[in-house]
Amino acid sequence: MAPRTTFSAHFRQSVTPNALRSYLAEFISTFIFVLAAAGSAMASRKIMPDARSDPSSLVVVALANTFGLASAVYISSGVSGGHVNPAVTFGKVVGCYIPIPTAIFYWISQILGSVMACLLLKVVTVNQNVVPHAISEDMTGFGASVLEGVLTFGLVYVVYAAKDPRHGQLGSIGPLVIGLITGANVLAAGPFSGGSMNPAYSFGAAAVGGSFKNQAVYWIGPLLGAAVAGVLYDNVVYPPQDSDTPWCGLDGSRV
Amino acid sequence: MAPRTTFSAHFRQSVTPNALRSYLAEFISTFIFVLAAAGSAMASRKIMPDARSDPSSLVVVALANTFGLASAVYISSGVSGGHVNPAVTFGKVVGCYIPIPTAIFYWISQILGSVMACLLLKVVTVNQNVVPHAISEDMTGFGASVLEGVLTFGLVYVVYAAKDPRHGQLGSIGPLVIGLITGANVLAAGPFSGGSMNPAYSFGAAAVGGSFKNQAVYWIGPLLGAAVAGVLYDNVVYPPQDSDTPWCGLDGSRV
Amino acid sequence: MAPRTTFSAHFRQSVTPNALRSYLAEFISTFIFVLAAAGSAMASRKIMPDARSDPSSLVVVALANTFGLASAVYISSGVSGGHVNPAVTFGKVVGCYIPIPTAIFYWISQILGSVMACLLLKVVTVNQNVVPHAISEDMTGFGASVLEGVLTFGLVYVVYAAKDPRHGQLGSIGPLVIGLITGANVLAAGPFSGGSMNPAYSFGAAAVGGSFKNQAVYWIGPLLGAAVAGVLYDNVVYPPQDSDTPWCGLDGSRV
Amino acid sequence: MAPRTTFSAHFRQSVTPNALRSYLAEFISTFIFVLAAAGSAMASRKIMPDARSDPSSLVVVALANTFGLASAVYISSGVSGGHVNPAVTFGKVVGCYIPIPTAIFYWISQILGSVMACLLLKVVTVNQNVVPHAISEDMTGFGASVLEGVLTFGLVYVVYAAKDPRHGQLGSIGPLVIGLITGANVLAAGPFSGGSMNPAYSFGAAAVGGSFKNQAVYWIGPLLGAAVAGVLYDNVVYPPQDSDTPWCGLDGSRV
Repeated sequence: MAPRTTFSAHFRQSVTPNALRSYLAEFISTFIFVLAAAGSAMASRKIMPDARSDPSSLVVVALANTFGLASAVYISSGVSGGHVNPAVTFGKVVGCYIPIPTAIFYWISQILGSVMACLLLKVVTVNQNVVPHAISEDMTGFGASVLEGVLTFGLVYVVYAAKDPRHGQLGSIGPLVIGLITGANVLAAGPFSGGSMNPAYSFGAAAVGGSFKNQAVYWIGPLLGAAVAGVLYDNVVYPPQDSDTPWCGLDGSRV
Repeated sequence: MAPRTTFSAHFRQSVTPNALRSYLAEFISTFIFVLAAAGSAMASRKIMPDARSDPSSLVVVALANTFGLASAVYISSGVSGGHVNPAVTFGKVVGCYIPIPTAIFYWISQILGSVMACLLLKVVTVNQNVVPHAISEDMTGFGASVLEGVLTFGLVYVVYAAKDPRHGQLGSIGPLVIGLITGANVLAAGPFSGGSMNPAYSFGAAAVGGSFKNQAVYWIGPLLGAAVAGVLYDNVVYPPQDSDTPWCGLDGSRV
Repeated sequence: MAPRTTFSAHFRQSVTPNALRSYLAEFISTFIFVLAAAGSAMASRKIMPDARSDPSSLVVVALANTFGLASAVYISSGVSGGHVNPAVTFGKVVGCYIPIPTAIFYWISQILGSVMACLLLKVVTVNQNVVPHAISEDMTGFGASVLEGVLTFGLVYVVYAAKDPRHGQLGSIGPLVIGLITGANVLAAGPFSGGSMNPAYSFGAAAVGGSFKNQAVYWIGPLLGAAVAGVLYDNVVYPPQDSDTPWCGLDGSRV
Repeated sequence: MAPRTTFSAHFRQSVTPNALRSYLAEFISTFIFVLAAAGSAMASRKIMPDARSDPSSLVVVALANTFGLASAVYISSGVSGGHVNPAVTFGKVVGCYIPIPTAIFYWISQILGSVMACLLLKVVTVNQNVVPHAISEDMTGFGASVLEGVLTFGLVYVVYAAKDPRHGQLGSIGPLVIGLITGANVLAAGPFSGGSMNPAYSFGAAAVGGSFKNQAVYWIGPLLGAAVAGVLYDNVVYPPQDSDTPWCGLDGSRV
């Protein structure tokens, strides 16, 4: 019964006023990010319907991801930690930074924010549709999952470093660097797997765009990559100096 | 009579030497920003007259907005708070950060700065005209207002976060992040509503460019979006820890 | 005789080991900046000989200016103050931050750095020539001077703000913002007057590229703009709190 | 015998747990950087097979280098110093910051990270090949070596400045500026010598891409340029105030 009690204690912590503000912050940040990211893909299609044939469309989308995510992480970093991405939240659960019930509310907020942003874009632009993430015709779903997973590994690893107090004054550019790794990865993977690294964004674009084809690619890879990054950063590459912070229990608390 | 007295007291505060320096700082910053933003739109037209058909023109304009606004906010942040935008000033009035008479002088300074920048561009480039903001032929004025309003919501929300002392060392990249969200939003909305988020810029481009068509779109949406951001940030998402800062009076003072 | 004595005292200060290191730092920084800026113009010509017809060439050149200048200012800011530009040095003389003899050695170092970078580019690329700054065929030399002057005003104003200790932690992104305003201005002025804002860069590109046509445009405008920025920032917009720092003497010292 | 003893003492220092974590950090950072840089070159080829004819492909690659390297340096700066490049490691050996045995393990980690990233890209993209660095047909190998060497000089000079504690709060944007100088140099040299500045990246791309043509260009130039930067920064331009830090011994220790 003990874990259940702990779980319900965690649940009560997850509905305090401060916790509710965190969910609202995640909703707003994910909304702002997906508005920029999904909007830029629609904008480059509007300018050039066959946007996949022009490298400058890739620049448009990569910069919107970079600038949008850096801003979105920045504004919520003081309230919710600035996840803006279910994979980041998952990586933080694996590292025992937030309990599972809180993470579930984060996920819901992020997915709602993404869906709302995509809906708004579709409604106001009238004849344009949201562009779901898609994989290149040459690639397999497995290969795309691996690519998205490795890219998300990099993103979540950067998130861990950006929040690490041991980095001192480097922490002041943390949200910017989270944006930069995202943009770098979009430039590398855009025409191959889309470079989503964000299941909430992919879900919103798929739900509003009307195609869940290969949706699993944008969940399995990123969640696995995020988990590996969370374990590796704190336990292998840069372990805390005080060795009295052991691995957390199954209920998401540090034991 | 009391409110009137308060208003006149606020007015006297609005013409001190420090206040006049603030207006000059807003004038210079808006001039520098609009010179870059409006100039880049003219530059991409000069290079490719049908600039709307090439995504790299969108990159040109978005980067000029990002880099120009970050610089313009940076240089006046120590003097006037670095608004550079009537919508930001309005959002600060709603949040009770500046009194209404001061805000009126900020607006005048911003609009003058924008008009002067557009005039200079038109005169020196001889055969080029300033490009007013325009909405896509598919869209309605209402849809464009909503889009500009939501984008400005994001911008003003970032402005609030960037000036929030609770963000600690993250404050050092504040002006940069204000530029980044602007660039992200231009990349998303460029071919739809232009991505202005700034009534002063839109007014200057319209006045010198010679077309006030849809001008209301660039005032109503941004002002409403800014007001919502100002209310939401301070009162819901991230309220001050000391609960003794209540809502301000109608005259713009905190009561 | 007094001013002459002071001048010679200043001259002796200008040849100390620390001063010589400053000149070397300015030489290296200007070399690195011009290598990137002039190289990017040659690179876009190499890729597309009629580079003036493609907005993405403007992006290439603007980003090279932004990234190159931010880096160049950064590396010499602790040694020479990171001018990397005779117009900035002139603006600092006008504001009484450095004496005239030192400024002359700065100018010589900057011009040598620029010429060396252009020479290296011409030699290693074999069949490519350095691209001098040029003004659009529609524009007058006077208009181009005004435009370059106004752009340089913005740049030097940012330089003043970036070095102002009253900006506190914002000082940590100073060199970056100096790069950003340069990039913003190149995006606005590239196809009109080239967006040089830097007489040393324009001189080096002209000397090695073999055309001094309109060279005066890149000296008169920038130097005047820099002087106005220096006077305006310190004396009008953001005067020192302690009013005992009056205007400097003709010999470049504060009286 | 004394040097040999010192060398073996250095070797023992090079296999402590902290040292092993440094090598893992260099492996991960180089993997993340090369994934973005090499991936972006493949992405622009995928979009436009004749990518060398479009300046926006150069923007894609330069931004991926900038964003990817800034992120990669950031995440390992607290563990391994964030070299991510054998030339940087060599420059640090020349400046006596790390002993030679440690440097050898850094090189191995960097090269492994690069090869792994290129292999992953080749496997998951199925029909795309990694693009090795190449020099323009007009240029000589010697000219390309000089160009890569001068560019790497700039990069390593920036690395020295970014890690210099005398720069105070400017240190907080150090990893970003290391990315910016890399991007600036890629924009200048992309169509001429590729703008690698990184022997590990060039080796990985050559090994997986299947062409070691001109590989020496990407080793000789960068290593020489890095050595010159290391000597010049610490000994000439910006020597330590305490003159009791002399040149280091042949075994890599400061004497």
